[in-house]
Amino acid sequence: MNLLLKEIRRNPMLWLLAFVPVVFVAEHLLPDSPTMLFVLSVLAIVPLAALSSSATEAVASKTGDAVGGMLSATLGNLTELIIALMALRAGEYMLTKATMTGAIVTKSLFVLGASFLAGGLKHHVQEFNRAGARMQAGQLFLATVALLIPSAVGAADAVRTGDFTQNLSLSLAIMLLSIYSLGLLFSLKTHKEFFGSAERHGEEGGEPWPVGLALWVLGGVTILTALISDVFVASMQAAAKTMGITDAFVGFVIVALVGGIPEMAAAFSAARKDRLDISVSIALGSATQIAVCVVPVLVLLSYVMGPSPMTLQFWPGAVVMMLIATITATFVTNSGRSAWFVGALLIGVYLTFAITLFLLPPRAH
Amino acid sequence: MNLLLKEIRRNPMLWLLAFVPVVFVAEHLLPDSPTMLFVLSVLAIVPLAALSSSATEAVASKTGDAVGGMLSATLGNLTELIIALMALRAGEYMLTKATMTGAIVTKSLFVLGASFLAGGLKHHVQEFNRAGARMQAGQLFLATVALLIPSAVGAADAVRTGDFTQNLSLSLAIMLLSIYSLGLLFSLKTHKEFFGSAERHGEEGGEPWPVGLALWVLGGVTILTALISDVFVASMQAAAKTMGITDAFVGFVIVALVGGIPEMAAAFSAARKDRLDISVSIALGSATQIAVCVVPVLVLLSYVMGPSPMTLQFWPGAVVMMLIATITATFVTNSGRSAWFVGALLIGVYLTFAITLFLLPPRAH
Amino acid sequence: MNLLLKEIRRNPMLWLLAFVPVVFVAEHLLPDSPTMLFVLSVLAIVPLAALSSSATEAVASKTGDAVGGMLSATLGNLTELIIALMALRAGEYMLTKATMTGAIVTKSLFVLGASFLAGGLKHHVQEFNRAGARMQAGQLFLATVALLIPSAVGAADAVRTGDFTQNLSLSLAIMLLSIYSLGLLFSLKTHKEFFGSAERHGEEGGEPWPVGLALWVLGGVTILTALISDVFVASMQAAAKTMGITDAFVGFVIVALVGGIPEMAAAFSAARKDRLDISVSIALGSATQIAVCVVPVLVLLSYVMGPSPMTLQFWPGAVVMMLIATITATFVTNSGRSAWFVGALLIGVYLTFAITLFLLPPRAH
Repeated sequence: MNLLLKEIRRNPMLWLLAFVPVVFVAEHLLPDSPTMLFVLSVLAIVPLAALSSSATEAVASKTGDAVGGMLSATLGNLTELIIALMALRAGEYMLTKATMTGAIVTKSLFVLGASFLAGGLKHHVQEFNRAGARMQAGQLFLATVALLIPSAVGAADAVRTGDFTQNLSLSLAIMLLSIYSLGLLFSLKTHKEFFGSAERHGEEGGEPWPVGLALWVLGGVTILTALISDVFVASMQAAAKTMGITDAFVGFVIVALVGGIPEMAAAFSAARKDRLDISVSIALGSATQIAVCVVPVLVLLSYVMGPSPMTLQFWPGAVVMMLIATITATFVTNSGRSAWFVGALLIGVYLTFAITLFLLPPRAH
Repeated sequence: MNLLLKEIRRNPMLWLLAFVPVVFVAEHLLPDSPTMLFVLSVLAIVPLAALSSSATEAVASKTGDAVGGMLSATLGNLTELIIALMALRAGEYMLTKATMTGAIVTKSLFVLGASFLAGGLKHHVQEFNRAGARMQAGQLFLATVALLIPSAVGAADAVRTGDFTQNLSLSLAIMLLSIYSLGLLFSLKTHKEFFGSAERHGEEGGEPWPVGLALWVLGGVTILTALISDVFVASMQAAAKTMGITDAFVGFVIVALVGGIPEMAAAFSAARKDRLDISVSIALGSATQIAVCVVPVLVLLSYVMGPSPMTLQFWPGAVVMMLIATITATFVTNSGRSAWFVGALLIGVYLTFAITLFLLPPRAH
Repeated sequence: MNLLLKEIRRNPMLWLLAFVPVVFVAEHLLPDSPTMLFVLSVLAIVPLAALSSSATEAVASKTGDAVGGMLSATLGNLTELIIALMALRAGEYMLTKATMTGAIVTKSLFVLGASFLAGGLKHHVQEFNRAGARMQAGQLFLATVALLIPSAVGAADAVRTGDFTQNLSLSLAIMLLSIYSLGLLFSLKTHKEFFGSAERHGEEGGEPWPVGLALWVLGGVTILTALISDVFVASMQAAAKTMGITDAFVGFVIVALVGGIPEMAAAFSAARKDRLDISVSIALGSATQIAVCVVPVLVLLSYVMGPSPMTLQFWPGAVVMMLIATITATFVTNSGRSAWFVGALLIGVYLTFAITLFLLPPRAH
């Protein structure tokens, strides 16, 4: 507990934890001010995401590479996962999908690009491990193809919805999860020497937490995040309407940036220390986990939790953005070298998407 | 003749030759059992494809690089060519095109991927000649673009069919054949030192055949394959309906896998011997030959043999699959290195397509 | 003046200057012969483009890298810019856009490909600086994405034209210009050592011009080009109709080839001298300048000069061609090595587009 307080004192981001109780109070006192609730819940999610990320790393560093890698994989995107689950339970599949694609695009363009920029402004040219980047870009590409096909076929023939798209989505989800397991086997077991330097990003800063504390924190954070995400999802649409922002922009840009703040902090700090391997691994690794693990898991869970099975049929614009993001990330990481302008280009591609979604008229899709 | 018997004894795949007479008998006795005829003709095509491949290599190894390369190019895909010609003569252009795109996708994703997997399960990391892979991926890319444009323009404006698409297809076919000739000139004459190690795949196993025998075998096999393909094409659609499989799946997946079995055997065995150059050359080289040689030749032949000129306008889904297959193969071969997971990723992309076609409702396209 | 005459005597392309007065005479005597005027104005534009290119380089070589680079960037594509401006003023946005996309595609496929071919026919294998090629391909890719999004969104929902597309185009134009400025900062200031060998292409042949002369020439050429472009734009559509050529083919192919002749001469001559760095820099650099500088500037200028704001919404076929051209150029320059067949492949892709546009029925788009 002492350690936890020390961590809170050390990390100013955690001071925002004060907003967690504020959200619950505000929810009861001001149920009719969605904009206020929306802003407060965003402010409360940020420190919870940071805590969850620290706790996951503390657990992972104790359990050894294989289990730890799996834990990071499962819990590293906890915030996005919980928001997506809340939306799933509410049957808001549009929001679930926007959150997922937004997270993939934001991580593979913005987090990667801003890391290159942050590192490049300090270091003239930076090098990083291509093997890891290539493997993750490869998985991301496969996942994008798997998400592209049902959308393309669905778009081509509006009649054949129902059974076909549903069976296809289920089969592809299982295929993606198999590839994900094989990928873990590859990077943690058979070829782990290629992924060496990228796995050590848990040991930075502060004293290590004991596992017991870390698990308690994880549990508590998960429950709090779930409760606040409920407020967030409920207030979001009304808030977006009040602020004149489109749903698509909120799901794609705001949720992804809010949920990704702790990751970004870690990626940017590593880039400035000239440890670009870690930044690339965080950015692409996290995007890959969402694409080949979280999204298929959500499809499977929708059979249990949702009002009806969720398919892998996405809004065509989302598929185009994912495809462009994946191809861009693949090109960019292919050389294993980076300078600040590469980061600027990646951010430029991201801005193209963000601007489009920001300007999109509300009832568009 | 003795040599031929020895080869048959040595290679268990050739024992399936017994099914060749069975097909002809069954065709007369059971003309109303398309499923049975379909299965029997598949079983009979496999050993004929294997024989044709051995005989071609025997001839090629005698005639020197230039003529030999051209022969392999023309005869290596004999089975697919004959099936496509049978469909062409019957005016079943849909089947012709499905067979061609299926062969391209299967070779550049499945054969390449399974080779990487087979080799990677035995060898930790494998290297191969990038120059050859790049050149073939480049030709494949050009061909995909040439096939994409008529389909895209045709899809955009349904009115302008007829003359425009036909003239465009004819012009592009001639352009592709010119590039193919230039490619042969490049790889067999002006820059042959870059393609060295990949050309020697005829000399494996067993005694070399005399050219006379090889030519007789080639002639006989061609006639038998033509006769059996006739049964195959005729029985296929009825059989597919009985078995509840879509036409698209049969043309795209089954024909391509059946016709490619001997190639696959050669590619996988080379990969396990750590001669990945040969596997890559078989997979991509064969896909390239179909795209820049066989397809344009079929367009030209349709003016002579078919009921009406065949265009290069493909089903949009087929173009998307070819484009994805080409880009994937280009990315993957770009580094010149491979491990088992790369193979798993390629097979994953292939499975995405195969699953989609398998689940596609029958009257879809 | 003496120097100018010497230059004219030295360079046979400049003898075509004789056609400049002929155009003005013909315009008054034969206002009803558009085909004649069209051909004459093409013949007159070629030497003006050559002169403008020499004069720009003379100025650039005097002012130092930073200002010189910016000048080359702004004036290097002067001919295309003036033609586009004339079309802009006349409100012929279709022609403006066709000219721009045609220039991008022609430079990144045809000029690059013909340079590789010209160099490769003389030298067995040529190497070039990958850093510069990658940076330019990256900017080109970003620009293509920025042009793809408004077209894709516009195509998806025909209702939402007007405000949305216009605001989006304006925002993206400003974003592209920012990236362009950052790119200049990167290549001319912070990382100029990577772009060393590609910047020296002004010093070839003949005596250097004094800056005063160069500026006078630039001014005169600009005015003459503007006057002749006026004739060119006015006569083009009537001429195209008479000759049975489509508008799209004229804008995309003929204007781009005519405007690019001096650039091509420089690029091919450098390639044959085994200075492929210069050729790649001319081809991709010029394409990049149009995509991330000229096109956005035209969007901004359309608010002042045009009858209504020009958007970044392009004909879908144009976007597909730009995307394919960009991806092809990226693949091809990725290895930093070239041989003649690579050039043949690039020209093959270009021919696919040119043939399609040539055959396209006139009232198609």
